[in-house]
Amino acid sequence: MNKKIFSIFCLGVMGILPCVAQQALWGGSDIVSPELQEDGRVTFRIYAPEARTVEVQGDFLATQLYETPFGKTAGPGRAALHKDENGLWTYTTDSLASELYCYTFRVDGLQVADPNNVFQLRDVATISNYFIIGNGCGDIYKVQNVPHGTLIKEWYDSPTLGGEQRRMTIYLPAGYNKNQDTYPVLYLLHGSGGDENAWSELGRLTQILDNLIAQGKARPMLVVMPNGNVSQSAAPGEASGPMVKPSLTESRRKNGEFERSFPDIVNYVEQHYRVIKEKHGRALAGLSMGGFHTLYISANYPDMFDYIGLFSAANTVEKESEMYQDLEGKLQTLFAGHPKLYWIGIGKEDFLYEKNKALRAMLDANQYPYTYYESEGGHIWKNWRIYLSRFLTELFVK
Amino acid sequence: MNKKIFSIFCLGVMGILPCVAQQALWGGSDIVSPELQEDGRVTFRIYAPEARTVEVQGDFLATQLYETPFGKTAGPGRAALHKDENGLWTYTTDSLASELYCYTFRVDGLQVADPNNVFQLRDVATISNYFIIGNGCGDIYKVQNVPHGTLIKEWYDSPTLGGEQRRMTIYLPAGYNKNQDTYPVLYLLHGSGGDENAWSELGRLTQILDNLIAQGKARPMLVVMPNGNVSQSAAPGEASGPMVKPSLTESRRKNGEFERSFPDIVNYVEQHYRVIKEKHGRALAGLSMGGFHTLYISANYPDMFDYIGLFSAANTVEKESEMYQDLEGKLQTLFAGHPKLYWIGIGKEDFLYEKNKALRAMLDANQYPYTYYESEGGHIWKNWRIYLSRFLTELFVK
Repeated sequence: MNKKIFSIFCLGVMGILPCVAQQALWGGSDIVSPELQEDGRVTFRIYAPEARTVEVQGDFLATQLYETPFGKTAGPGRAALHKDENGLWTYTTDSLASELYCYTFRVDGLQVADPNNVFQLRDVATISNYFIIGNGCGDIYKVQNVPHGTLIKEWYDSPTLGGEQRRMTIYLPAGYNKNQDTYPVLYLLHGSGGDENAWSELGRLTQILDNLIAQGKARPMLVVMPNGNVSQSAAPGEASGPMVKPSLTESRRKNGEFERSFPDIVNYVEQHYRVIKEKHGRALAGLSMGGFHTLYISANYPDMFDYIGLFSAANTVEKESEMYQDLEGKLQTLFAGHPKLYWIGIGKEDFLYEKNKALRAMLDANQYPYTYYESEGGHIWKNWRIYLSRFLTELFVK
Repeated sequence: MNKKIFSIFCLGVMGILPCVAQQALWGGSDIVSPELQEDGRVTFRIYAPEARTVEVQGDFLATQLYETPFGKTAGPGRAALHKDENGLWTYTTDSLASELYCYTFRVDGLQVADPNNVFQLRDVATISNYFIIGNGCGDIYKVQNVPHGTLIKEWYDSPTLGGEQRRMTIYLPAGYNKNQDTYPVLYLLHGSGGDENAWSELGRLTQILDNLIAQGKARPMLVVMPNGNVSQSAAPGEASGPMVKPSLTESRRKNGEFERSFPDIVNYVEQHYRVIKEKHGRALAGLSMGGFHTLYISANYPDMFDYIGLFSAANTVEKESEMYQDLEGKLQTLFAGHPKLYWIGIGKEDFLYEKNKALRAMLDANQYPYTYYESEGGHIWKNWRIYLSRFLTELFVK
C-alpha cells in the first residue's frame, strides 16, 4: 500500500471532522474529485470500501425518465463507478462541452454530495456539487482575472409589508468605490423555493457580470436581488425563528403583496446608492415566479422600468389582488410608454411553454414589440444563466 | 405504507436533483433531521434502506481517542442510529446544553452530510452540518429579531503584495447607512486553512455582533476580515484559476509578507468607510495563524491598535523576515504606548498551550499588563466563538 493510498485509507476510516476534532488541523483526504482533464473528460472518485454500488448522477449524462407518484418524470442520467482493490471507486466521462455542470453521488441508493468537492449549490432543499468546463460557454461562469464587483447582504425596511426588516443581495460593479458615477440598476427576482441568495449562487450573477463588463459586453450596473417570498424575510438560516428545511411553500405569492411593495425596494436603493433615478436607468427581470412578479410589477408600475425580462415566467393568477386585475389594460399603458426592451425567454420543454405561448399571442395581437429567445431544455438553472447572460448585454444601451 | 412514508420512499428511490432535473420543482423529501425537541434532545434521521450501519459523529457526543498514523488522536464521539422496517434510521440524543453543534453521518463507514439539513459549515476541506440549541449560551449564535448589520464581500488592492486584487469580508453595524457617525473597526484574522469567509461563517461573527450590539454589550463597530493567506487572493472558488480542494498548504506565511502588507488593508478601509482613523478606534485579533499574525502585526506597527486579541495563537517563527526579528524589543515599544487591551485566550487542551504559556511568562517577566482567559477544550471553533464573544464586549469602551 503506497503512502497516498495509506493516507486515504486512514482518513477514510478515521472520518476526521475538523470542525469538531479536538485539534482542528486536518484538511480531509488527498483524493481528487472531480478531476478535470485537459481534453474535457472528467474523472469522479470516492473512497467507499463498504459500498456495493456507487453511481454519479448529473446533468452531463443523458436525461432519463423515472417513474414517480406523479407519473414519468425526466431526471438527470446516472453512470456506475467501478471499485478498485483499495475501495476507491472511479468513473470518467466522455469529453464534455464547456458548461457549468451539477452532480451528486448515489452510494447504495443514498444520494450524497461528493466528499472531496467543497463546491456546492443549494436549490430549495437539495445540495449538489458543481464544476465548470472552460474554453467555451462555461468561461462566463468562471472567476476570471478581471476587476471584481462587490457583493452585499443588506437589510431594508418595507413600510408596505408592515415595516419588517427584509434581506437582499446587492452587486456593485468594480470601480463603484473609486469614482462618483451614477449607475443604472437591474432588479433581479428569484423563483419559487428560491431567495435573495439564489441569483448570486445558483445563478452565477457575480461571475457573469464581472466577465461581461470586463469584456465591454455589458454596461457597469448595480444588481439588486431581493427576497420575493412575502412569508419569508430572508433565506433559510438568515432570519430569526427555527432553522427549518427550505420548501416551496415558503414562496406563496400572498395575493400581490410583494408586487405592491416593490417601490419600497426601489426607494431604498435610490436613497442609499448612487444610481439613476429614472425609468431609463432601471431594469426588472425574474425567473419562474420571479418572471410572474416581473410581469405584474412592470404592468402595475408602467413608468418605473425601461427594460423588462421574463425568464421561464409563470403567469397563472390564482389570487384576487387588484395587482392582478386587468392585465391587458395595464400592458396597453406600459407599451404606450415604449419600454426599450421587453424580453421573453423559455425552453422548448418547459412546462410553462404553452402559457408563455398564450402570453406572446396576446402581445402579438396587440402588436406590442418584444424580443423572444427560445432555448432547448426545460425549467432549469442552466437556461436561466444563459438567459441572464444574453439579457445583460441588452441593458442600458439604447 | 402511509402517505408520508410513501413520499419519502419515492423521493429516496428517485434521488431527485432539482438543480439538474428537467423541471426543477422538487424540494426534497419530508424527513426532518435534525429535529430539536423542546427539552433539548435532538433526533437525527436518514432514509438509507440499503445501509448496514449508520452512525452520527458530532461534538455533542463524548470525545473518543482514535488510532491514526500520527498516534492516538482525540476526535468527536459516535452513536449508532437504528433502522425501522421502512429503512428510516433514527437516533435521539440526551438533553444537550445550549451551544452550536456540528455533526456528520457515517453510512457504512462513509462520512456524509445529513441530506435533510441544508445548514452546513466548511472547515478547510470538510463540510459538516450544524444546529443550535437555544435558551442559553447558544442564543448568541442564533439570528434573533434584532437590527441586522450588512455583510460585504469586497476586493481591495494591495500595493505591498504587488498590487493584486484581494478579497475581504466587511461587517457594517445596523444603522451605518442611516446616520453619519464614524465607527471603530475590528480587524479579525482567520487561521491556517481558513480564508476571508471563515469568521462570518464558522465564526458566526454577524450573529454574535448583531446580538451583542442589540443587547448594549458591544459598541457598534465595523469588522474587517481579510484573507490572510499570501498565496491565495480569495477563498477557494472565489479567485481565478482552477477550483481545487482547500488545503492547509495554502496558508503559508510567506516570510512576513502578510504582516508587512497590513497597512494596505487599514488604508483601504479608512479611505472607503466612515471610521475612526486613530489607534483608539482600531482593534486587531485572530485565531491560531491569525493570532500569530496579530502578535507580529501589532508588535511591528505599535501605534496602530489599542485593542489586541490572541485566540489560541500560534507563535513559532520559522522564517527570516525582519517582521519576526526582535519581538521582545518591539513589545517593549508596544507596551510603552499603553495599549488599552492585550487579550489572550486559549484552551487547556490546546496543542499550543505550552507555547502560549511561554509567551505569557515573557509578558509577566516584563510586567506587561494583559487579560487572560483559559477555557476547557482545545484548538476548536467552539472556543474561538466564545473568545470572540467575550473580546467584543471589551472593545472601544475604555
